[in-house]
Amino acid sequence: MPIQTVTIVGVGLIGGSFGLALRKHGFAGRILGVSSARTLEAALEQGAIDEGASLESGVGQAELIYLSQPISQILDGLPRIAKLARPGALVTDAGSTKGAIVERAAQCFGDDPCFIGGHPMAGKEKSGVERADPDLFQQAVYVLTPAGEKMPQTPVVADFQGWLGKIGARIVVLPAGLHDEVVTWTSHLPQLIASALASTVAEQVPAGPCRQVAGPGLQDMTRLAESPYEIWRDILGTNWANVDRALSVFLQQLRHFQEQLAGPGLEEEFRASQEARRELRPKRDS
Amino acid sequence: MPIQTVTIVGVGLIGGSFGLALRKHGFAGRILGVSSARTLEAALEQGAIDEGASLESGVGQAELIYLSQPISQILDGLPRIAKLARPGALVTDAGSTKGAIVERAAQCFGDDPCFIGGHPMAGKEKSGVERADPDLFQQAVYVLTPAGEKMPQTPVVADFQGWLGKIGARIVVLPAGLHDEVVTWTSHLPQLIASALASTVAEQVPAGPCRQVAGPGLQDMTRLAESPYEIWRDILGTNWANVDRALSVFLQQLRHFQEQLAGPGLEEEFRASQEARRELRPKRDS
Repeated sequence: MPIQTVTIVGVGLIGGSFGLALRKHGFAGRILGVSSARTLEAALEQGAIDEGASLESGVGQAELIYLSQPISQILDGLPRIAKLARPGALVTDAGSTKGAIVERAAQCFGDDPCFIGGHPMAGKEKSGVERADPDLFQQAVYVLTPAGEKMPQTPVVADFQGWLGKIGARIVVLPAGLHDEVVTWTSHLPQLIASALASTVAEQVPAGPCRQVAGPGLQDMTRLAESPYEIWRDILGTNWANVDRALSVFLQQLRHFQEQLAGPGLEEEFRASQEARRELRPKRDS
Repeated sequence: MPIQTVTIVGVGLIGGSFGLALRKHGFAGRILGVSSARTLEAALEQGAIDEGASLESGVGQAELIYLSQPISQILDGLPRIAKLARPGALVTDAGSTKGAIVERAAQCFGDDPCFIGGHPMAGKEKSGVERADPDLFQQAVYVLTPAGEKMPQTPVVADFQGWLGKIGARIVVLPAGLHDEVVTWTSHLPQLIASALASTVAEQVPAGPCRQVAGPGLQDMTRLAESPYEIWRDILGTNWANVDRALSVFLQQLRHFQEQLAGPGLEEEFRASQEARRELRPKRDS
């Protein structure tokens, strides 16, 4: 059992869920949390951590350091954490963009202690350890982005991957840059579209009975607009160029739909989109 | 009990669900269905109708004639149905746009038999009587669009509104033109965005491991892309001008988001969208 102590830095929805998931699936070591006093109290009450710790003490004691803060705080903290982590340890993170974090980590970390970027494709519109869920990672894709060409091979890395499997995650290894390109399309573009749609509809449809004239489709299409800006500031700030390009491509596609509106060409577009959606749908979503 | 016989013309998802819902909530009269032989067989098996009928016979016998075919078929059928319906009867429809249907009905119908347009804000991505559901209308807004200035006042109209209440629908009365403007924003624009997003993402993200890097947000944002083109051809064909304008407004809003990407202005947009989504969210969706 190479991992005996896990330190979760930033015990929010993801960090708290990671602690709960480890515990649920039989992790018998210690789980330390580094967060504000108020968050630690809530995390202790939930059973997501065993005890609170300072950054120095928490990082220095652990074989696995799990950074689940906002991206900007992860970036700021990496140099210090690289110094505090002990030999043999693995530092990983759960930030939603990987290029900037892996680049910074490559500057701060060598081979030992080592760093691997991570991005669990799991979350909720609302954040906070109060909503932590031991089953959050069940069936969820969990991207790992090594800093170098390939994954470091250490006992702790192997054990970490084993725990990811036990808590139900499906590991996908990708270069950080490719990860950021992919989530631009699958996450960042949809987020901006949902936000723009919510504000457009609220502006155009007067409050009162007209607002009731909406089905579940609109709810699905605007749900993401409730995501907190604090998270998205960092995501968009570290993936600006990809998102800018994706918006241009999507705008062009939607203009193309608009041009086809009156003509017969829309049928082809609709059928292609139907086929596309079938391809994108996970097999378990029937 | 003014309504003793209901004839459902087009026994698909909506028509079949209307029959099942009436039965579930105690309608003791007869329910006739006018559809293809194959659909009638399935509808009988489900208990959505009591018997099949020809258009002449079905429409001529009923106090309530419920048109739940595709919009183009409703439009084509109205002149004949106006001649076949008997005095005192109410003809209503469940088409997703109301302007063209109410306009055509106003040409074919007088005061007796009378016509009221209808649009239940309920549905599924998949169609067909096999998916009919007696609870489809529960909590769903049901728009009624009278052909004239106000709702006709007849015993059958009052009874029909009573049955809508019993099957769980929440009636909203709107002029047909206003209905079409509102659903442009709440339904037709989201549909086109979902379709355009599905095809864009499938085009940009290669099949294989990258396609797995997607969370539930993308699924929500593309679910509507599975809607059948046959329905949307008629919807867009009868609401073309509104949809064209809505696309232009949305494209401008998304370009505005793009311009704000790198700067501090995005925060304001995000917070406004968050507030907008809260306003749009039905109270029961917590």
